Amino acid sequence: MNRQWQLARRPEAEALADHFRYVTLDVPEISGADDILIRNRFLSLDPYMRWRMNDTKSYAKPVGIGDVMVGATVSEVIHSNDPLFAAGDIVVAGGGWQDYAIVKSDGLRKIDPAGASLTAYLGVLGSPGFTAYAGLMKIGEPKTGETVVVGAATGPVGSLVIQLAKMAGCRAVAVAGGPDKCRLAVDRFGADAAVDHRDPDLAGMLAGACPNGIDVYFENIGGRVLDAVIPLLNPFARVPVCGLISQYNGIEDRSDAISLAQLMQDTLVKRLLVRGFIVTDYQAYRDEFLALATPQVASGAIVAMEDIVDGLENAPTAFLGLLNGKNKGKLIIRID
Amino acid sequence: MNRQWQLARRPEAEALADHFRYVTLDVPEISGADDILIRNRFLSLDPYMRWRMNDTKSYAKPVGIGDVMVGATVSEVIHSNDPLFAAGDIVVAGGGWQDYAIVKSDGLRKIDPAGASLTAYLGVLGSPGFTAYAGLMKIGEPKTGETVVVGAATGPVGSLVIQLAKMAGCRAVAVAGGPDKCRLAVDRFGADAAVDHRDPDLAGMLAGACPNGIDVYFENIGGRVLDAVIPLLNPFARVPVCGLISQYNGIEDRSDAISLAQLMQDTLVKRLLVRGFIVTDYQAYRDEFLALATPQVASGAIVAMEDIVDGLENAPTAFLGLLNGKNKGKLIIRID
Repeated sequence: MNRQWQLARRPEAEALADHFRYVTLDVPEISGADDILIRNRFLSLDPYMRWRMNDTKSYAKPVGIGDVMVGATVSEVIHSNDPLFAAGDIVVAGGGWQDYAIVKSDGLRKIDPAGASLTAYLGVLGSPGFTAYAGLMKIGEPKTGETVVVGAATGPVGSLVIQLAKMAGCRAVAVAGGPDKCRLAVDRFGADAAVDHRDPDLAGMLAGACPNGIDVYFENIGGRVLDAVIPLLNPFARVPVCGLISQYNGIEDRSDAISLAQLMQDTLVKRLLVRGFIVTDYQAYRDEFLALATPQVASGAIVAMEDIVDGLENAPTAFLGLLNGKNKGKLIIRID
Repeated sequence: MNRQWQLARRPEAEALADHFRYVTLDVPEISGADDILIRNRFLSLDPYMRWRMNDTKSYAKPVGIGDVMVGATVSEVIHSNDPLFAAGDIVVAGGGWQDYAIVKSDGLRKIDPAGASLTAYLGVLGSPGFTAYAGLMKIGEPKTGETVVVGAATGPVGSLVIQLAKMAGCRAVAVAGGPDKCRLAVDRFGADAAVDHRDPDLAGMLAGACPNGIDVYFENIGGRVLDAVIPLLNPFARVPVCGLISQYNGIEDRSDAISLAQLMQDTLVKRLLVRGFIVTDYQAYRDEFLALATPQVASGAIVAMEDIVDGLENAPTAFLGLLNGKNKGKLIIRID
C-alpha cells in the first residue's frame, strides 16, 4: 500500500495539522515508456513547503487541494522503464510525502550509497547546502576580513553559510532563536558571535556583534532580523535573498522599523546589492559545489546536524515544529 | 569679484530660497604648488544637490553651513601652477555655484571646445548621461524584446535611458509628470509609451503600457512610481537605483501600497536584482561610454534637451523649480 500525505485545505495564516490528510492508496504501477517507480526512504522537510500550501503565484506552482505534498526524497528504484536506471539504484528524487512515486529521469540523480550518508544528500550536500553555497559565494562574494551575517543559523542552510564564511576568512555572525541555538552556532559551527533574535534589543545586540558593520547579509528569515540588519549594512554590502521564514507561516513579526522608502534610500546611498535567487538558478555550479563539499563533509571539516524523525505518519507534526523553530539541524523523515 | 551661493541653513523639509545666501567675495588667489584657478562658465544643477543640503551621512559629505554650494561646471583655466593645465584650457570641474574656484587637477577633465557643445559635457556627455549608461547597460543589461521603464523620463538621465533602451531593441516606457512631458518622451526621445505619474490610476496606466511586464526598472524617482512598478516586475527583473527624486525634498508622496516585507517577498519569488550605484562606481567604463555616445550626439542620433538659464543669481530659483519638476531637459546656468 502507498501511504500518502495530501494537502486537505489551504491555511489562511498558521499551518495546522488539519490542513493535511493521511490516506492509503494502492501502490501505483508504471505504464509510460520512461516511467520509474521509486520507494521513498528519506523525506526532506523544508520551510519552502509552507509556501507551496498557499495559492500564490511563485516560481513553483502551489500544491493542489487533494494532491500529495511535495518534497525531496532519497529513494530506491523498484521498477524502471528507463534504461538509465535499474532496480536497486539509490537516487535523489522529488518523491513527495508518500511511500511510492512514479517519476521521470529528469530531476533524478543517482548517488553512491558507499559515499556520504544517504541523508546528507538531502541536507548539507543537497539543496539546502547548495543554497548556502550559491547565495554566499556567487552573490555574497565574501572577502577576507568582511563580516557575514546569517539568520536561522543552526538550520541546514545557515550552518553551512557560517562554515563557508569562516573558510573565506570572514567574521561570521549567527542569528538564531534562543540561547541553545546561539551556543550551537558558535560551538558546533564556528560562528564568531551569535545573537538571539528573540532578544528585545536585537538591534543593539547585533550592532555589538558586528563592530565593523555588515558586508554580506544572507537573508533567509526576514522580519525583525532584516530590520536590525539594514542600518548596519556597509557601503557595497550584498544581500542574497533565499527565504523569508518569518513570513512563510502568515506570522507577521515585523517591527515596521524600516520602510520600503528607507531601504531604497539605503540601497542608493550605500550602493547595496539585493538579489533574490533559488538554487536552480545556479545549477551550473552544482558540480563545483559537490566537488568542494563532499570530501570536506566526509572528513568532518564541514559539519552538519540532522534531526531525523521516524515514520511518515509524523511528517506534519515534524513540519509544523520546523516552522515554529522547534528543531535543530536538517529535518528529515525516515520513511521505512 | 567672486559671486557665490552659500548654504545659509539646512531645510527641514522642502528647500526654499532663503536656505541659500548670495555673497560677493574677492577672487581667490592660487598659492599651492599645484593649484589651478578656474572661471566657471556653465553650472550644472542636479537633484542630488538637494540631498547635500541635508546633514545626512551619505557617499558624499554634506555641504557645510556657510560653504559654497557644490556643482559640476564647465570652466576656463585662468592661472595654473599645475604644468598639465594652462590658461585658456576648457575643463569640466567641480567649480560650484560661484564665478571662480581654486581646484586641483584630480577630477578635472580637459574638453575640446571644437567637439560637442560645452553644455553637453554637463548633460548627455557628462555625469547624467553616464549615469544612464552605467545603470542601464551595466546593471540593467537590457536584452532585445524586453521592457524598460524609467521615471523622470524627460530629464537628462531618463531621456538617455529611453534612447539607449531603444538602441538595445527594447520596449521603452516613460514615466513623466504631466501630459507635455509625456508627449515629449514619445515624440522627441522615442519612448514607445508614456505614463503620467500624476494620474490617479498610475498603476493601471503603467500596467497597460507594459503588457509583457517590466524587465528593467531604472529607478530614479521612488515613491508612487516604485509602488506601481513592483507588481509588474517580471522574474529576473533588474532594478538599478540611482536616485529617488520624490524623496529628496522631504515631500513624501508614497501611497504605502508596498511594504518592505512585500518587496523582499517579490525579490525572492521573482529572483529580482536591486542595486544602488553612483556613476563613480563605474568610472572604468567612462571612456567606453564617451566613445559610443560622442559621435551619436554629434550626428543627432542621440538627442538631448537643455534648459539653460542665464545668470548665476538665478541659480536657487532654477534649482527649486527643478526639484518641483518645472523644467524640461538638463538644467544649466550660464554664468557669464
